[in-house]
Amino acid sequence: MLAALLPKLAQPSARVALGPGDDAALLRIGGETWAATTDMLVENVHFRRRWSPGRDLGHKTLAVNLSDLAAMGDVEPGFCLVSAGLTPGTPVSWVKEFYAGFRALARRAGVAIVGGDTVRADKLTFSVAILGRLQGEPFRRDGARAGDRILVTGTLGDAAAGLRILERGAPRGAAQTFLVRRFRRPSPRAVWARRLARSGVRAGLDISDGFWRSLRLMCGASGMGARVAAERLPVSPALRKWSRRPVDLALSGGEDYELMLAASPSAAKRLAGESWLRDVGEIRPRREGITIFERGKKREAPSGHEHFDA
Amino acid sequence: MLAALLPKLAQPSARVALGPGDDAALLRIGGETWAATTDMLVENVHFRRRWSPGRDLGHKTLAVNLSDLAAMGDVEPGFCLVSAGLTPGTPVSWVKEFYAGFRALARRAGVAIVGGDTVRADKLTFSVAILGRLQGEPFRRDGARAGDRILVTGTLGDAAAGLRILERGAPRGAAQTFLVRRFRRPSPRAVWARRLARSGVRAGLDISDGFWRSLRLMCGASGMGARVAAERLPVSPALRKWSRRPVDLALSGGEDYELMLAASPSAAKRLAGESWLRDVGEIRPRREGITIFERGKKREAPSGHEHFDA
Repeated sequence: MLAALLPKLAQPSARVALGPGDDAALLRIGGETWAATTDMLVENVHFRRRWSPGRDLGHKTLAVNLSDLAAMGDVEPGFCLVSAGLTPGTPVSWVKEFYAGFRALARRAGVAIVGGDTVRADKLTFSVAILGRLQGEPFRRDGARAGDRILVTGTLGDAAAGLRILERGAPRGAAQTFLVRRFRRPSPRAVWARRLARSGVRAGLDISDGFWRSLRLMCGASGMGARVAAERLPVSPALRKWSRRPVDLALSGGEDYELMLAASPSAAKRLAGESWLRDVGEIRPRREGITIFERGKKREAPSGHEHFDA
Repeated sequence: MLAALLPKLAQPSARVALGPGDDAALLRIGGETWAATTDMLVENVHFRRRWSPGRDLGHKTLAVNLSDLAAMGDVEPGFCLVSAGLTPGTPVSWVKEFYAGFRALARRAGVAIVGGDTVRADKLTFSVAILGRLQGEPFRRDGARAGDRILVTGTLGDAAAGLRILERGAPRGAAQTFLVRRFRRPSPRAVWARRLARSGVRAGLDISDGFWRSLRLMCGASGMGARVAAERLPVSPALRKWSRRPVDLALSGGEDYELMLAASPSAAKRLAGESWLRDVGEIRPRREGITIFERGKKREAPSGHEHFDA
């Protein structure tokens, strides 16, 4: 509820093309458009140290911010600032591993780490601010229109399964190892976002807190309803092997950091045949609400998303 | 010591004009130069709630970031992102006051609040990232040269006195009220920074952890020594009234957020007569070390700075 205060802080400025409320703000700087976003991760709220080696957590901390940039469209990552609140008991070796993971992804993504702050804290706390240059038109949460196709990248539910596996102990076998890796090391979808943007996609967001929640966010912002075929949600072979109800995890499991788009029928047609993209339903007028069908039968909305910070 | 890891994260980039290690990084964006910096504030490390009303703490949280921009020269504030880790027990009214103070200063400073993140935390935690456009040449920490005059804005030691007054109870009388206000509501020195930059000043930083510490930082980065006349440090009438040894607080007290500059003799001459600026000494060759004189007699270096986070 306090998060609702944030958009009220916004003040009109000729330099701001899009203020708070989307995955990133859009700024006009020197004739260019830049996307800017920030995320804060707190120990025992967003992560537990025993779930991930420091290196993986460093990777993930940057990855969730890169995902917010990809969720805005064709964005070339530029700069980031990283602040760390460190506890006196945190081993130096762990912090070095964290920064090594962060830095390795920064190098691959082409984002320059330009500064930060290191302070003492009671719980490990990381805050990243990141900027990237937007080319072309952005993906907006409020851009979905009735008749648009609902598209999803990659596969859903893997990270939630990975977290459950870690809660029960160490992963065993190839499928569990894959699912845990999906939880620990999400892949920002910048390359796919570029392809989508250049194909005419204009609405979307990332799936950080589960498909269902992201769908509600996009429909809410756009003033639309939706109709989804749950059995069409993309599910990995590993998740299918591990879970008897993979569709449930795909619907409500968090931390996948895939993209959800609303694409005009013509844009969707241009993208048909992409193996990494799945058409899972249609944007409908608001009065129809958001309905989920499974094999032609209407099913209940998930009771809640499975993000650890629920 | 962990803070020393941060500069090692930097990676070369044609877009980065100045990486980590100064008050802000300098970025090349669309033919312009932008300064970017971030600060994290943690409850009971950097502040205590009982010391400041929420509104003042909101002001101060933005002010310390604006101070980092002013410490880079003639910087026009542009955008900021603010992340908040809030405890379940924090009253909503307090958070609203915090944001009101933050927003009021943002409006006056012309900085647009474009986004942020609100999460749950065990301790109140605020992280701000801010960007502003640099005009002309920056103030660099490593830009001091032998023979430069050492200049200081405003007055020193007030905030440290204000904190001590608050630790003992409520302020009484006009002098104490002034000192407490200096602690609670620091004034970013953007206007003075512009005047200094346009007069040819090229080296400096802000005085966040005390004059002595800032002097050591500037001399260290520049490979220089310094000679300071302690009795020339600018001290407010209120501090003179409250303290029997105002010079000690002026030397080592933190959180003043004034500016310290190293100005060439010609630049210093152009600035002579400015009532808000004091010439307190001279940059010397490194071999002479950093020496502080008081009425012609060499005195010991302060034993430590008085920042709460010491």
